[in-house]
Amino acid sequence: MPITAQQAYKNLTDQFAKIISINNAAGVLGKEAETTMPTGSGEERTRELSAMASITHDLTKDPQVKEWLDIAEAGASSFNAIDQRNLELMRRAWVSEAGLPDDLSQELARIGSDGEALHTKVRKTGDWSKIKDWDKHAFDTMRTVGQIRQKQLGSASVYEALLSSFSPDIDDALVSREFGKLEKALPGMIKEAVALQKKGPQPIPLTGTFPEAQQAELTRRLAAAECFDFTHGRVDAIDAHPSTGGNPADVRVTTDLSNEANPLPGIGSTIHETGHGDYEQGTPKDLRQELVGGTMGMSVHESMSQLMEKIAAKTPEFYTFLSQQMREVFNRPDDPALTPENLRLLDTKVEPSFIRTDADEMTYPMHIVLRYNLEKAIINGTLSVDDLPKAWNDGMQKLLGITPPDNAQGVMQDVHWPAGLIGYFPAYALGNMIAAQLYAAALKAHPEIPAELGKGNFAPLHDWLEQNVYSKGSTLTTDQLMIAATGEKLNSKYYLDHLSQRYLGRPYSDAAPAANTKSAPKAPGA
Amino acid sequence: MPITAQQAYKNLTDQFAKIISINNAAGVLGKEAETTMPTGSGEERTRELSAMASITHDLTKDPQVKEWLDIAEAGASSFNAIDQRNLELMRRAWVSEAGLPDDLSQELARIGSDGEALHTKVRKTGDWSKIKDWDKHAFDTMRTVGQIRQKQLGSASVYEALLSSFSPDIDDALVSREFGKLEKALPGMIKEAVALQKKGPQPIPLTGTFPEAQQAELTRRLAAAECFDFTHGRVDAIDAHPSTGGNPADVRVTTDLSNEANPLPGIGSTIHETGHGDYEQGTPKDLRQELVGGTMGMSVHESMSQLMEKIAAKTPEFYTFLSQQMREVFNRPDDPALTPENLRLLDTKVEPSFIRTDADEMTYPMHIVLRYNLEKAIINGTLSVDDLPKAWNDGMQKLLGITPPDNAQGVMQDVHWPAGLIGYFPAYALGNMIAAQLYAAALKAHPEIPAELGKGNFAPLHDWLEQNVYSKGSTLTTDQLMIAATGEKLNSKYYLDHLSQRYLGRPYSDAAPAANTKSAPKAPGA
Repeated sequence: MPITAQQAYKNLTDQFAKIISINNAAGVLGKEAETTMPTGSGEERTRELSAMASITHDLTKDPQVKEWLDIAEAGASSFNAIDQRNLELMRRAWVSEAGLPDDLSQELARIGSDGEALHTKVRKTGDWSKIKDWDKHAFDTMRTVGQIRQKQLGSASVYEALLSSFSPDIDDALVSREFGKLEKALPGMIKEAVALQKKGPQPIPLTGTFPEAQQAELTRRLAAAECFDFTHGRVDAIDAHPSTGGNPADVRVTTDLSNEANPLPGIGSTIHETGHGDYEQGTPKDLRQELVGGTMGMSVHESMSQLMEKIAAKTPEFYTFLSQQMREVFNRPDDPALTPENLRLLDTKVEPSFIRTDADEMTYPMHIVLRYNLEKAIINGTLSVDDLPKAWNDGMQKLLGITPPDNAQGVMQDVHWPAGLIGYFPAYALGNMIAAQLYAAALKAHPEIPAELGKGNFAPLHDWLEQNVYSKGSTLTTDQLMIAATGEKLNSKYYLDHLSQRYLGRPYSDAAPAANTKSAPKAPGA
Repeated sequence: MPITAQQAYKNLTDQFAKIISINNAAGVLGKEAETTMPTGSGEERTRELSAMASITHDLTKDPQVKEWLDIAEAGASSFNAIDQRNLELMRRAWVSEAGLPDDLSQELARIGSDGEALHTKVRKTGDWSKIKDWDKHAFDTMRTVGQIRQKQLGSASVYEALLSSFSPDIDDALVSREFGKLEKALPGMIKEAVALQKKGPQPIPLTGTFPEAQQAELTRRLAAAECFDFTHGRVDAIDAHPSTGGNPADVRVTTDLSNEANPLPGIGSTIHETGHGDYEQGTPKDLRQELVGGTMGMSVHESMSQLMEKIAAKTPEFYTFLSQQMREVFNRPDDPALTPENLRLLDTKVEPSFIRTDADEMTYPMHIVLRYNLEKAIINGTLSVDDLPKAWNDGMQKLLGITPPDNAQGVMQDVHWPAGLIGYFPAYALGNMIAAQLYAAALKAHPEIPAELGKGNFAPLHDWLEQNVYSKGSTLTTDQLMIAATGEKLNSKYYLDHLSQRYLGRPYSDAAPAANTKSAPKAPGA
């Protein structure tokens, strides 16, 4: 007996509620493995997570899910907008899990895990011959995946289909256009910023030890200031890459405080990850058992962390609060390196460098544009993997004016390509653009935000984000979200303007840079 | 196309490996909820655990499992002994999950959760009318369950079928016979022990504060002495009922150290729970993805904790080590209450009392015999739930010579009956019996055990248990295990002898107690 569209939709939401619960549980177990788990229990934990992944995989690709999707979609015109959107997200999840032939799906998983292991093993050697064939295989496989998904999702191109795994609802036409603007504007702006900083006042270096225990206290204070809800989350210090996991009701943030000579990277990580955590905690409680109640994909997620770390917590005003907290926590009331202005100088230095993850705010997007151009060219068949090292070095020279001394500091540095994560990189710079555009809108609505940040009060900013982003879950596409929150579609203007104001001391214009800038810009609150 | 018995068996073990992994993950999540989980995340955690339980339930009662069981059993004569046993355990798991009609299965779950809630709400009132009808329904439902399971498992009686859920492979004929011996011997022995202790030296009471942080340090030392492997487990202090969970590769022990006036209950809990933990950690690594590699059910599990807490850690020798540790940790080098002999006197006091969970070692089994007699009579229809309060009070008078002042301290104290856990209680006293019998055999093989305990060295005892119990997993029935380890089937002789030696200072004999015992027994190592 055939069931109604309503019943099919109900069955789907029951099934996905179960999937979400298992994923939430796996989220906690994955992070707990980095914090409180006994050291010898990793092998068992991996087995558990793998069983859970296999179960959510089976539940998603259950043939009944496809039947229910077909029935529900046929009657979806009578659904409300949120249910329609939820149905669309469930279809995408099904395509992602069940849309590939089994052998291709297994090959993807193999590329993910074996590629990461191979990369860890060979990247430091800089010997391209050790990874070239693997990369070629990864790109070829992902091209095939993209071709299949393009048809299933109706994407405009193979590359856009790959992009959509990480940044759903974002057209590659937009990425291409806006990244083009960054590519055009930033190399000159970077040169100018470097020159200005050279002429300007030089920061006093940090000296002595900033003990991990005191950094942990600072971390707690910063996360609390940033409105992190400790009744629904933890922040733990570990000696490994910072990240955020768990689930919206139980967010697990880890930060790395092991650098006792310089606490600034740990501070940045804490603020960054707490931004991710705030987003998770702010998703709509009544929709959390549905896909539509979850966060919106990598680009928006990354924007929520970048907005906090790179925009809010690098305003001149914020350094007043940070300086006061650091002096107190580290008991250095008179350390001249801990003045607000000196912290700002230390923390906003612009300098082209080879490694993406170490790059400063202004040069970072060039690393992304480089990777975007290259991976897209390979997927489109206009660049061969064989030619990647040369194309990489040429790109670095063109965008940042430097050439890596070896492949370890060049084309072999990132895990993404060997692990088959093609289409992932743009999310980082899209996140920067989204962050700047949202921050400009928040500032318009609440001009007091910077002054409040100076008092350690993130609430006005947090509340605006909660209302305009967090609480929307995935009910909106990126376009809809940006128009509702900022009045405009996503574009690079606000991001370029932010960089220009901060580092060149003037609004952005696409005219040529002024020739006669004489001194470093004075930040408004400095 | 029909599959072979071997293929069916392989499919079964794959399915159960997945079930075990999910249960292992749930084990960690359940305990993490008591320790490091943020305070507000409980509702979400409950949802996760419920989704995981529903998934393992579905995987176990999968109709394919029954098909595979039928096929594998038909060809099982060609399997090795371990695979045969594993197959038997998978059949039992299937019976337990799928053997009941759906509505009965759901009613069982409802009785479990609602019964616990009701008990929590009304037990302190002592108002029997508030729980009588519920208890009646719970007993009636469990009688029906027992009737169905008796047929499926071939148990000798309805009650034995219920018993087997908690203490598999133990005949009720044995329980009845050996509990009868306890019932006959212990009331007189208890009276004698109480009289002896009255005439003997009285302990100096503990005074002052034993701070929780120092108790935590002591806990760590005790668990380490007891051979707990901290690379595959944690011991955390929480302000709630102590228990052991997690999984064999990641054992999570919690202990309650909140009593700062008296650390002895916390010490007892730590040693008890670590005994459970040692057992889990000692199960055979190569069989852990199969049911046959798991622990053997409640009775044997309880024996492993009781052996440590009640037998090993109450030997006069052990108090030498404990005294030294307590003096050091609490920084009380001269406290006269912390001598080995005084600790022994404090810790081995015998006194009939109303509440089972507070009972001392010697009176405890009487609480169990009482519950066993009553619940079996109700299941067999020879006692009505209406008459339970009177039968309870009569039993207490007969077994312990005291009558509870109200039902809160009598028939309404335990959660087991309202929660439908009929057949559970015997496991506690069976655990005591198993523990005493195994300890006697360990002592025969390693007479140095008590002296080593005096040095805080549990290794000889731990290693004997690992070899004779832990490493066997569930490959043996209780009978087979006891015969292999002790040369005899399970019986109460060693337990009665242990109590007689410790509290009356002489070997047990079923002749009448000596009339003229003049003074408290001097313990050998005191």
